Amino acid sequence: MLRARGLPGGRAATAAQALCHGDLTGFTTHGLTNLARLYLPLLDSGRCDPRAEPETVTDTGAAVLLDAHRALGLWAAAEAMDLAVERARTHGLGMVSVRGGTHFGCAGFHALRAVGHGMIGLATANCGHQRLVPPPGGAAPMLGTNPLALASPAGDHPPFTLDMSTTVVPTGRIRAAARAGETIPPGWLTDADGAPVTDPAAYDRGEAQLRWLGGDPEHGAHKGFGLGLLVEVLSALVSGSGVGPQPAAGKTPTARPDDDVGYFLLAVAPSALRSPADVATAATGLFGALLDCPPHRPDEPVRYPGWHEQRRTRERTAHGVSLAPALHAELRAVADAAGLAFPDAVPSGGAV
Amino acid sequence: MLRARGLPGGRAATAAQALCHGDLTGFTTHGLTNLARLYLPLLDSGRCDPRAEPETVTDTGAAVLLDAHRALGLWAAAEAMDLAVERARTHGLGMVSVRGGTHFGCAGFHALRAVGHGMIGLATANCGHQRLVPPPGGAAPMLGTNPLALASPAGDHPPFTLDMSTTVVPTGRIRAAARAGETIPPGWLTDADGAPVTDPAAYDRGEAQLRWLGGDPEHGAHKGFGLGLLVEVLSALVSGSGVGPQPAAGKTPTARPDDDVGYFLLAVAPSALRSPADVATAATGLFGALLDCPPHRPDEPVRYPGWHEQRRTRERTAHGVSLAPALHAELRAVADAAGLAFPDAVPSGGAV
Repeated sequence: MLRARGLPGGRAATAAQALCHGDLTGFTTHGLTNLARLYLPLLDSGRCDPRAEPETVTDTGAAVLLDAHRALGLWAAAEAMDLAVERARTHGLGMVSVRGGTHFGCAGFHALRAVGHGMIGLATANCGHQRLVPPPGGAAPMLGTNPLALASPAGDHPPFTLDMSTTVVPTGRIRAAARAGETIPPGWLTDADGAPVTDPAAYDRGEAQLRWLGGDPEHGAHKGFGLGLLVEVLSALVSGSGVGPQPAAGKTPTARPDDDVGYFLLAVAPSALRSPADVATAATGLFGALLDCPPHRPDEPVRYPGWHEQRRTRERTAHGVSLAPALHAELRAVADAAGLAFPDAVPSGGAV
Repeated sequence: MLRARGLPGGRAATAAQALCHGDLTGFTTHGLTNLARLYLPLLDSGRCDPRAEPETVTDTGAAVLLDAHRALGLWAAAEAMDLAVERARTHGLGMVSVRGGTHFGCAGFHALRAVGHGMIGLATANCGHQRLVPPPGGAAPMLGTNPLALASPAGDHPPFTLDMSTTVVPTGRIRAAARAGETIPPGWLTDADGAPVTDPAAYDRGEAQLRWLGGDPEHGAHKGFGLGLLVEVLSALVSGSGVGPQPAAGKTPTARPDDDVGYFLLAVAPSALRSPADVATAATGLFGALLDCPPHRPDEPVRYPGWHEQRRTRERTAHGVSLAPALHAELRAVADAAGLAFPDAVPSGGAV
């Protein structure tokens, strides 16, 4: 479907991998559900240019600034991380700062690209000019959910991959609960007076606001807000992309709040600084000791972020991904509209 | 007092600045209270070498690996950030990775050193082999409170400075509450069954454990744990310092769990990538818009991390820092023991 919209084959394939990463790892709010809801509309409205070619604005060797020129973030951020990895091979670390981007999907997908080269990857994105979350004590939303991911080799163990929004949950979790007609735990949303809201549909009715990681001031809301600002600074102040607290006015007349997203992609190569064998031994020791930590409940062994995601990816790659009937129907509809063949549903657990 | 222990004058002055940063900004748990409790005992026991000279292990230009050889972290991390800034001037970013360090005080002090050069500073430290916090679902502590700081220029406004532990609060907050005989909010500590503990003294009795930022799984405890691991990976896996989950066995016979701390210091120079005037305008716009956010309560305007810290620093630099009588007496006692003059207490609010 991405190729039918004009994306070159290799880039369409990378974007499809980035999208499927959500369904394979379990971050389903950032998976195929976003194809018909987010990415195809971005392409069809012209806000995302399927044939965009990122332009190098500045290149210092270890650091590169790119203008993505409205490229699809799913592949543009991946290629930017690959460039950061290339530079880290020479310099010990490499940074690629990107402006003019669009929604890049799972931050963890991009961070993980460094791990295949024995490096640590850090990926952040702001949300362009979108205003979704108020600062602590503020009555108006000012920043996005500003995702951050770090992925690291773990020696003999599955890579460590932290992939998080800096809010308690991303907006996709709220909307998925609303679609499913579920209530949400107190602490995700609050009303104008700060009281908990457990009806997720209140968010899109404008009656509730998302909270920062940490929830309330006593439990670290200023840290969640500060981490959201850390992402804004790294993604937007370095690159010159749009920022949440400032309107998109003065840009192109068709600009939407979520245009002009900024990314920050950093690759760090420990093996450029010390023996690769020592790095691998230390990583195996660190993550192995965590897996060996005595658990609270004998049937729930201790894991670290990324462990379950790798297990799910292996299982789902081998046995297929279960899609909700509504999502399958939605994908079939967009395939039909594009005149493309689409596989019939098979019972859950069947081969695909 | 640091010079009397053998530190060279310039380094003693930097260390004293780092220590006073805590009292000036309001991070009093990391201020002068730690001189007699932490730093002098480190020096007196020989675990910290007052005359240590950090050694360059590897230097790729943009990235440097140092062995601090048990130098006092208060100055060694500051000098490492200064080196990262120097490298960022040429390469657009600079990273200094440090092993063999000791407790570096306020992470924000080190991150802020980049801001004076128009750069963004990121500073993290692990806690050596110390085990203070269990992973979610784990029954044994495995990692430290792993601080992280990011500081950024904010144009015409006070620098943005996020300075945080990756736990709900640092251990110093728990111990300060215990010394003051106060109770703490539920959610900072839990007992072995996960129930909230509000008696801070239970922590040092071994009856309660510190929680990660996010508190419980539904509100993002895996994010707090993941951020703690992010700090561990950047600080220790890159440098080869001690790590929490592995014992110090096999190192020197006198090794203590909080020896061999690792730091990660990163300086990013946006002005190496785009016009310094554009960076300043964007920073003024971003942080100015946050300060202009309509507040919930008219008498509590919206602020961002670092704003109050700069205000306090200016006020206290001009009018003096109030010390609790017990801390003043403690400092006098260590000064007397070193044969050094020490000022008498003056009433709070008086000139010093």
